[in-house]
Amino acid sequence: AANVGVLSMVVYFFMLVAMYAFLANLIFTLTTHNSIVPEHRITRVMGAIIAAVAGLSYYFIQDYYRHMLADLSALGTEAERQELIRTSYNAIGQYRYMDWAVTTPLLLLKMVSMLRVESSKAKGAITALLLADFFMVLTGYIGEQQLDAAGHILVGPKLFWGAVSTVGYLVVPFVLYRLWNRFKDQAKPIERKSFKIIALSTVTTWGVYPLGYVLSVLDIDMNWIHLSFSVADIINKVGLSVVVYLAGKTLLDE
Amino acid sequence: AANVGVLSMVVYFFMLVAMYAFLANLIFTLTTHNSIVPEHRITRVMGAIIAAVAGLSYYFIQDYYRHMLADLSALGTEAERQELIRTSYNAIGQYRYMDWAVTTPLLLLKMVSMLRVESSKAKGAITALLLADFFMVLTGYIGEQQLDAAGHILVGPKLFWGAVSTVGYLVVPFVLYRLWNRFKDQAKPIERKSFKIIALSTVTTWGVYPLGYVLSVLDIDMNWIHLSFSVADIINKVGLSVVVYLAGKTLLDE
Ligand SMILES: CC1=C(/C=C/C(C)=C/C=C/C(C)=C/C=O)C(C)(C)CCC1
Ligand SMILES: CC1=C(/C=C/C(C)=C/C=C/C(C)=C/C=O)C(C)(C)CCC1
Repeated sequence: AANVGVLSMVVYFFMLVAMYAFLANLIFTLTTHNSIVPEHRITRVMGAIIAAVAGLSYYFIQDYYRHMLADLSALGTEAERQELIRTSYNAIGQYRYMDWAVTTPLLLLKMVSMLRVESSKAKGAITALLLADFFMVLTGYIGEQQLDAAGHILVGPKLFWGAVSTVGYLVVPFVLYRLWNRFKDQAKPIERKSFKIIALSTVTTWGVYPLGYVLSVLDIDMNWIHLSFSVADIINKVGLSVVVYLAGKTLLDE
Repeated sequence: AANVGVLSMVVYFFMLVAMYAFLANLIFTLTTHNSIVPEHRITRVMGAIIAAVAGLSYYFIQDYYRHMLADLSALGTEAERQELIRTSYNAIGQYRYMDWAVTTPLLLLKMVSMLRVESSKAKGAITALLLADFFMVLTGYIGEQQLDAAGHILVGPKLFWGAVSTVGYLVVPFVLYRLWNRFKDQAKPIERKSFKIIALSTVTTWGVYPLGYVLSVLDIDMNWIHLSFSVADIINKVGLSVVVYLAGKTLLDE
């Protein structure tokens, strides 16, 4: 810790833990491919992709953070340190968006397939879901780039783009809810239960990200946002994978 | 974004998204190997190779671009920035050619095998296809190297080599069309449909590359070319992979 502070070191800890958790999830998903019913195997493929992309993304994140820590330890005052943590937050945070561009559509497709939605019968809804999600990620990324020449957040523009992004975000649970109404009767009980859990996560554990986005304009230690995002990523990505595995395994055992 | 501009950051975003998309495609291709009919499995192997090479190529591209961004943020005026974006474009753009030298022949072989062309019966046509393609890539690469001592494009020579390369390019759809006429009756309907989609892409979404090549001699922000190429790469490589998967899966289900 020396003079970078314990919080910074705990953030670094969770970044590496997240990276290892995704590696674990990748191996778990690949090796249990045959322990679940064939209909759900394609969702395991998506799970493997999510794990691999997130793992690589966290490799970049922790690498950037590690270099930042080295610079941090050379700084004399707490004000200088907070300044570096703030400006580097914006550089590190942006890596999450490239990951989300690939992984969040797959998370949504996993949810949809849990309900045995036949893609041919719900083309419009699935397209809307994916477009809204991509719109959310891209406009959020543009919002993250609203910085002045010194690398400080331009509060007004950042919040404006955040509001734009939220429009896409709100479409997601709305479409999922409509799909639920249309297809819930054809799914098996365990699939219904699993769908409910994972679909609800889009308005609960997914909510951590817009919250962090808004809090970033305040004068807080940005390390708290790094920390929450790392923990939320593990829950959202590995958690979903476990739920799908348990459902698919229960169906195979039956 | 600070002083490098939002467009540069969006370009960086799409470079990483493309890299992740290829990683995703690699895992997808490898894990769904047995979900498609045996006759088309060899095309999945080609798909895996394409994904791996493209992913590594994008690793180099985004890495170069990231260092360029760091230099960019140190420059004071917009004119200096555009100058760096222009000269680094030529350095970054060339990485695409090494990728194409390996991946475009495989893309063409994937198309050909979708039509159940027996290679023994079409040796001449397939050889012509691959040679024309390689000629296109190599002469295009030589064209990209037509720079003066300051790193600026020599318009005349670049366009000359572009025209030479176009000769190779035009041979590709011509040969594909002849193969279509010869073999279309022995392919199944879904294979015919898939071949049509992917073969047409050589004159539609492949057209982005010669267009970008020509536009590069104009006084435009080269970031737009980076952006279009990254998006086109995802469509051409991942899109083709999905089309082949859907065709192979439909045939297995039947
Ligand atoms: C609404 C909103 C956002 C939502 C982000 C979300 C919902 C991200 C979800 C990420 C997930 C699920 C990752 C997986 O592990 C942004 C882009 C922060 C910008 C501000 C407005
Ligand atoms: C005609 C022409 C070109 C054509 C390039 C093509 C057609 C590239 C295709 C790449 C693909 C399909 C990549 C896969 O993702 C060059 C070399 C730019 C040089 C200028 C003339």
